Amino acid sequence: MGNGMSTKQHLLAYLKEGKGTWISGESLAHRMTISRSAIWKHIRTLREEGYVIESSQKKGYLLRQSSDLLLVNEIQEGLSTSVFGKRGIHYFRHTDSTNTRAKLFASEGAPEGTLIVAEEQTRGRGRRGRRWFSPSGEGIYTSIILRPSIPPNEAPKLTLMASVAVAEALISMTSLALSIKWPNDIIVNGRKIAGILTEISTEMERIDYVVIGVGINVNTSRKSLPSDIENTATSVLMETGNPLPRNALLRAYLEWLEIYYTTFMTKGFEPVMKRWKHLAGIIGRRISVDLIERIRTGEVLDIDKDGFLILREQDGTVERIISGDVTLLNK
Amino acid sequence: MGNGMSTKQHLLAYLKEGKGTWISGESLAHRMTISRSAIWKHIRTLREEGYVIESSQKKGYLLRQSSDLLLVNEIQEGLSTSVFGKRGIHYFRHTDSTNTRAKLFASEGAPEGTLIVAEEQTRGRGRRGRRWFSPSGEGIYTSIILRPSIPPNEAPKLTLMASVAVAEALISMTSLALSIKWPNDIIVNGRKIAGILTEISTEMERIDYVVIGVGINVNTSRKSLPSDIENTATSVLMETGNPLPRNALLRAYLEWLEIYYTTFMTKGFEPVMKRWKHLAGIIGRRISVDLIERIRTGEVLDIDKDGFLILREQDGTVERIISGDVTLLNK
Repeated sequence: MGNGMSTKQHLLAYLKEGKGTWISGESLAHRMTISRSAIWKHIRTLREEGYVIESSQKKGYLLRQSSDLLLVNEIQEGLSTSVFGKRGIHYFRHTDSTNTRAKLFASEGAPEGTLIVAEEQTRGRGRRGRRWFSPSGEGIYTSIILRPSIPPNEAPKLTLMASVAVAEALISMTSLALSIKWPNDIIVNGRKIAGILTEISTEMERIDYVVIGVGINVNTSRKSLPSDIENTATSVLMETGNPLPRNALLRAYLEWLEIYYTTFMTKGFEPVMKRWKHLAGIIGRRISVDLIERIRTGEVLDIDKDGFLILREQDGTVERIISGDVTLLNK
Repeated sequence: MGNGMSTKQHLLAYLKEGKGTWISGESLAHRMTISRSAIWKHIRTLREEGYVIESSQKKGYLLRQSSDLLLVNEIQEGLSTSVFGKRGIHYFRHTDSTNTRAKLFASEGAPEGTLIVAEEQTRGRGRRGRRWFSPSGEGIYTSIILRPSIPPNEAPKLTLMASVAVAEALISMTSLALSIKWPNDIIVNGRKIAGILTEISTEMERIDYVVIGVGINVNTSRKSLPSDIENTATSVLMETGNPLPRNALLRAYLEWLEIYYTTFMTKGFEPVMKRWKHLAGIIGRRISVDLIERIRTGEVLDIDKDGFLILREQDGTVERIISGDVTLLNK
């Protein structure tokens, strides 16, 4: 059963071992050397955490369905990463913003790979201080702390890397046709299904930490969308008609993220960039891009090696853009 | 006496009004409408805070000397800024690092101008994770939170701005001949008297907050210097032979900083840069600069409008450097 497990986790492991069969309270109490009333107490707690456990005076207990909550033990069960999600997961039923929490943990020295997960964000954030709609239990809202040894001006690459990892996770678990919209959105049928918010803490020439926050609309229903995003947002459930286990999707994201991060740090950014370009399909497209203080329109020549967008404007001038709101124009 | 003052602060104000004369306990108790034993209790607290207060059964109380601690009321007394140090000062007898504390306050939404002050830092930091020697009561260790509306790539200017403010404060209160060493040190007689550590939190294209940390060696004695910095560090006391009231120097710094910051935000960086160049005297000098991964040697052509150092190397190539350790070479 492994060490460091709580009694409750032990009990859960026995129930999972049962694979949908009944296990008597007596045999559980015997194997765990605790009283039957203690068993009952832990069963109640597990039910509160979302596990569907049937009970019968005669037959004992049966685990009908695992919790869909993003519980630490559920995330870690079968997680094949080396570092990401293995060095501490901070789980919140609700919090203001997982990025805000991550920055606080990072300021206090939390190591690379530390994960923050919330069922609900009360002040979920997107770029430029925008809101990210984060209803309880319907999406994945997670932030990871990285401490890469790269100069601060290479940080935009990390957003591209994360968008590739989110895209790969969705591709590996659904049949959705998706594309990446530079710099930080994942789009299905013209609507946003996921977004990335990267925040960085630096001295001038040295990164202290990077927080990559991801919001994925997983089991959000169309009717729950607020009116201001009902025409621009979508979810896995809306697109496929089926709910997806959030824990499995989160694990897939962490595994892909670790693969691409390791590639970036050991082999450089080119392999990541290559995959990004394949998934983005923005190069050669006419776009307009809103840069807060002005709007530029033109053709995308490239995303350069630093992750900047290279735009040729109508008058022929070429601009290098770090980040902005892109609108694809007609071909 | 103003509103919002505690009984203790009221008492201190009456003692200061006395300007070195005795004030009877009876008249204090009468004016403040509290008991004489309450007066005595607050006198004891003030003494613990470093105020030298004489007491006599017959004559009452006399404030011989204000506290040299960087207490909030002492800092604010006579501070002529509008914002800096007026929107909250967090005072620590000792803390790990004022920059670390400032980042936590900023993450939780502390407004521009919030000040963190410590008598002692147990993990005072310089650039590149270096230690900043921060003995109790001998220096000024302070960090301020700024939220400037500038793009992240202009952040290096804030370090230059802060170094000008520290230099101006030292010039206005001492007769020291000092110079600024790019990017972040103040030098007297070839030794470091003050340093600046700027840390930034950004999204890609938008600054969330900037923390400017300053360490000034004020009343540090030569014998208290650890051996690894005894030949490279100095202090106001060491250079002038006289101690300087830290509160007054801190006020001067805050006032100069607010002047230069307001100038930068309303009129642009050029006036600040002009003063910086005057105080730095690095342009035209031969230097070597350590950039972590390599060392460059050459002549300083300029500090450009973004605060980058423009170096012409011996082979004629010109490099633009954001930050590094500079050594001045012979002319």
